[in-house]
Amino acid sequence: MIQRVADPAQAVAVDTGSQHYDILIGAGLLDARASWQGLPRAARALMVSNPVVAPLYAPRLLSALAPHYDRVSLLELPDGEAHKDWPTLNLIFDRLLADGCDRHTVLFALGGGVVGDITGFAAACYMRGVPFVQVPTTLLAQVDSSVGGKTAINHPAGKNMIGAFYQPQRVVCDLDVLRTLPDRELRAGLAEVIKYGPIADAAFLDWIEANLDALLARDAAALAHAVRRSCEIKAWVVGQDERESGLRAILNFGHTFGHAIEASLGYGTWLHGEAVGCGMVLAADLSVRLGLVPAAFGERIARLVERAGLPVRAPAAIGAERYLELMRVDKKAQGGEIRFVLIDAPGRALSRPAPDALVREVLAAHAG
Amino acid sequence: MIQRVADPAQAVAVDTGSQHYDILIGAGLLDARASWQGLPRAARALMVSNPVVAPLYAPRLLSALAPHYDRVSLLELPDGEAHKDWPTLNLIFDRLLADGCDRHTVLFALGGGVVGDITGFAAACYMRGVPFVQVPTTLLAQVDSSVGGKTAINHPAGKNMIGAFYQPQRVVCDLDVLRTLPDRELRAGLAEVIKYGPIADAAFLDWIEANLDALLARDAAALAHAVRRSCEIKAWVVGQDERESGLRAILNFGHTFGHAIEASLGYGTWLHGEAVGCGMVLAADLSVRLGLVPAAFGERIARLVERAGLPVRAPAAIGAERYLELMRVDKKAQGGEIRFVLIDAPGRALSRPAPDALVREVLAAHAG
Repeated sequence: MIQRVADPAQAVAVDTGSQHYDILIGAGLLDARASWQGLPRAARALMVSNPVVAPLYAPRLLSALAPHYDRVSLLELPDGEAHKDWPTLNLIFDRLLADGCDRHTVLFALGGGVVGDITGFAAACYMRGVPFVQVPTTLLAQVDSSVGGKTAINHPAGKNMIGAFYQPQRVVCDLDVLRTLPDRELRAGLAEVIKYGPIADAAFLDWIEANLDALLARDAAALAHAVRRSCEIKAWVVGQDERESGLRAILNFGHTFGHAIEASLGYGTWLHGEAVGCGMVLAADLSVRLGLVPAAFGERIARLVERAGLPVRAPAAIGAERYLELMRVDKKAQGGEIRFVLIDAPGRALSRPAPDALVREVLAAHAG
Repeated sequence: MIQRVADPAQAVAVDTGSQHYDILIGAGLLDARASWQGLPRAARALMVSNPVVAPLYAPRLLSALAPHYDRVSLLELPDGEAHKDWPTLNLIFDRLLADGCDRHTVLFALGGGVVGDITGFAAACYMRGVPFVQVPTTLLAQVDSSVGGKTAINHPAGKNMIGAFYQPQRVVCDLDVLRTLPDRELRAGLAEVIKYGPIADAAFLDWIEANLDALLARDAAALAHAVRRSCEIKAWVVGQDERESGLRAILNFGHTFGHAIEASLGYGTWLHGEAVGCGMVLAADLSVRLGLVPAAFGERIARLVERAGLPVRAPAAIGAERYLELMRVDKKAQGGEIRFVLIDAPGRALSRPAPDALVREVLAAHAG
């Protein structure tokens, strides 16, 4: 199996029962020899990135990988959620086949969530599965999308509708790359960091509230703690339930409302993290209206999301019925019944349906 | 997990370690209640078929499934290997999403290898995996493609290049449906039956030689034995090596040459089984030229393939260099080196490279 990295202080382990891999977190990992040792051997590797990230980091990753492969090439995909679709995925297959890549070829996803999701899905499908490594370059990808093996592309009728559970060989989170991240992307990533507090760790929620200004100012120590604690929580959840038959659903706090916002506006109008931030405000309020938590908790989440510079009001033009329709095709829906991830105490989440009337109340209160 | 069918005489068990399911083999299974009991519960099911098979058998399958699901619908895909591609796969996703199907929806693949491969891949990817059942209606699908969880679509640059290992919940082989199979399809299926002899069971090879006329005449008892023994061998191989990291490669006897023939002629010009039949003749001859088996063994395979009414000569117009080029992008190739499945004794196969010069000799001897 895959060789573990020596220093346990560096790595967060993900163990799904059938698979085991490490998340490496630290400054300067892109250039560190140890980051790339012990991966599956192959003649070739393909780095998949986009035109924004590749000029910044692809040459350094290329240098780091060169000792390990006979040939490493680079493929740039069009940037953005709107391109997380079949034609873009097929660019990876075209390239792998044109280059004569075999089933041992290792893919490296160098970029944010879109690059990671689409490269992971390509790795899951190419010749029925080749190894891949996540090298996330956004905060959102480091704390969420690169960890846990969810890969997918979008369908016009729904986000992430076509995909696979397929674990990477390793996740390498170089904290230095967060320095070049645009402010809007940093804030979007903070939405997923904030998420881990209410669903799994009340003390982490307190910590985020106390350190939000430091995180927004990109304080290195604060970001390091936020990434590490987020990855620890995600690794724990994924280790319990790789294929989302139960517990893993809590990671979708804010995502049922969020996906509906993204789908209705067209993917990429709002960033995923922005939609999730707003979605958490709505899901927290729904938790309040169901009597699971006091009103003050809903206000607390709304205030934190707002301080992070994320939207707290859903687009009103969409209309409650359209929101409900979109949420009924969410992957967590069952027999047309929408399931929401709700909070029943700080640090504790559950997944359950809610009356349409209450959902309409939430939308009426928070849209516009 | 999945409920086993009671009568062990009926079922061939497939056990991949992580998954367990039964292959039911018998006459009249399409209408038998027991065939459809114990599958995962869901509100909806989707039968995927094609315009040739659906008029013959979809109404009966619909009746059989009706007691188990609130709603069962039918999707007909265009028929033939030429349509085993992304646009056809996407028809399944479009339909599932248009019908509001959730991650519990069960897919039923009613048809031959193309329907089974594409429906299985759709099941693997839709919402990252929904359950599916194989209901193979060709001899080839009953003895080979429906068993073992290989699913895929073709890419213009190679057959089955995009796919997944994804096991069905059950395989239901109703031997009665073989009565309506066109002669050419029956012969193509016999290629895969013949295959199991040389690679795994010398006694079965003897039996096929002795019973080939009965098989061609669709003798019920002969077909029942051929399907059962083929499935037993395939189940044993897949149980040892689900993901083709070793032993499973032997199932590709004849397929390296065969895939090159199919790709060069355009998918669907020759049936898959026809290409495999011819490919076995070439692979047996390559085994002879490598000194693994005596010349008589090569002639024995060629005679059997010819008696089955399958082609024994490869299309000459393609040229040896094009064959070699196509075989280098075969999924079993490694670092550009072609790996062939060869016979080193009747009932025993191995996978290894061969000198290009010998491959050219084989092509020169058997093309045209």
